[in-house]
Amino acid sequence: MTSPVIPSVGIGTDVHAWAPQPTSRELWLGGILFPGEPGLDGHSDADVIAHAAADALFSAAGMGDLGTNFGTSEPQWAGASGARLLAEAARRVNEAGYRIGNVAVQLIGTRPKVGPYRSAMEQAMSQAAGAPVRVSATTTDGLGFTGRNEGLAALATALVYRDDELLTDSPRR
Amino acid sequence: MTSPVIPSVGIGTDVHAWAPQPTSRELWLGGILFPGEPGLDGHSDADVIAHAAADALFSAAGMGDLGTNFGTSEPQWAGASGARLLAEAARRVNEAGYRIGNVAVQLIGTRPKVGPYRSAMEQAMSQAAGAPVRVSATTTDGLGFTGRNEGLAALATALVYRDDELLTDSPRR
Amino acid sequence: MTSPVIPSVGIGTDVHAWAPQPTSRELWLGGILFPGEPGLDGHSDADVIAHAAADALFSAAGMGDLGTNFGTSEPQWAGASGARLLAEAARRVNEAGYRIGNVAVQLIGTRPKVGPYRSAMEQAMSQAAGAPVRVSATTTDGLGFTGRNEGLAALATALVYRDDELLTDSPRR
Repeated sequence: MTSPVIPSVGIGTDVHAWAPQPTSRELWLGGILFPGEPGLDGHSDADVIAHAAADALFSAAGMGDLGTNFGTSEPQWAGASGARLLAEAARRVNEAGYRIGNVAVQLIGTRPKVGPYRSAMEQAMSQAAGAPVRVSATTTDGLGFTGRNEGLAALATALVYRDDELLTDSPRR
Repeated sequence: MTSPVIPSVGIGTDVHAWAPQPTSRELWLGGILFPGEPGLDGHSDADVIAHAAADALFSAAGMGDLGTNFGTSEPQWAGASGARLLAEAARRVNEAGYRIGNVAVQLIGTRPKVGPYRSAMEQAMSQAAGAPVRVSATTTDGLGFTGRNEGLAALATALVYRDDELLTDSPRR
Repeated sequence: MTSPVIPSVGIGTDVHAWAPQPTSRELWLGGILFPGEPGLDGHSDADVIAHAAADALFSAAGMGDLGTNFGTSEPQWAGASGARLLAEAARRVNEAGYRIGNVAVQLIGTRPKVGPYRSAMEQAMSQAAGAPVRVSATTTDGLGFTGRNEGLAALATALVYRDDELLTDSPRR
């Protein structure tokens, strides 16, 4: 007897404020350094794309969020890069028996121009997650905190499915 | 002849402002009472997690939203708890021929600490929906209305699939 | 040998500010004209529902966003209606080998009342996308730029799947 594969979806958002100027903080987005751009504030590298992607993965797998996974109980992750956090999130989700279908992240904000870096970000994020991560971007027409350029937001969704559904599926192959 | 099961996805957000202080309003989130916490404003119990989850379910099934389902035409729902609204949303979605794969909700805001209540919220919401509801949380680094702690937001996605696709699927089992 | 169909999910948001009053701008939402309502600002028709839907489709298919598809390199799309942009987005996604499962869009804002127009918007958007597009709406309880009625936002998710998975699936039919 086989059963269809019914995936699960998840959602994640992340927001970081720009560091007060002048700043020596670097801007990391989607695992990529944006050279010459002043950075976002935060204890971590403030990579909103990687953080939203990791949160969406945990959400899809029902495994909490960045705070419950990498919070005060695991201080070794406090300074980890966004790409490393996403890789570890994917590892935990896989270990819990899920395969990752894909992750999609939209960056919301005024600067920087991400077009030239989009492919590099998708490659870095996909390598970290071990699955396709799509990156897109938009602005908010001057409205809200992203419109006033106070910081950046990222919005992500993810799709995962259980490994064992594929296994029980095997007789029909 | 069988056909693969192609699910549908939906999206839902909900926002409620904190009640003016002092208030006798209780704080209900994810179907759980947060004892001692002042509550959100609203005609209902202002449970943003339950409301966003219900909206995501209606959205996935193409059945409108909380307003079109429980609006002025059905005044009996005006004072219903979030958990009861989610249960009724799930009932209607099921009745329309959909099975619920899962719902994922992210709470966005500054307080309260939800970590200790996350499992209880997931249990209450999953019981109401009759399907797995994942709950996670994040903050917005001091930005926007959630950063200024003017209220709470919740963002949800849901996945549903048609019952009859499973039925036509049965020959391959 | 057959393989299960594993879809991909995508995400998209769009925001437009109201045009300064008085304005001759018309209000187009979900491909429908709202007669007598002053419009949103923007180079295009500012149809946030259609734009968010198109962005979610590109996101699900890993094909960038409105900017990378219809930006300065393709000026012929500068004045296109939201419905035409969504139709062209769907065409490109299909051409890249994806079928569209569904798109779900939630309009977020204070006015106009969309209830009476919801079916018409769903019909117009579904016709443009060649697949079911669900439209819902909510408010933000007076909070944020949508609560202050400075503009409208739309939040969308989409599900697509690869055509060729259906093809390799054919032996089991």
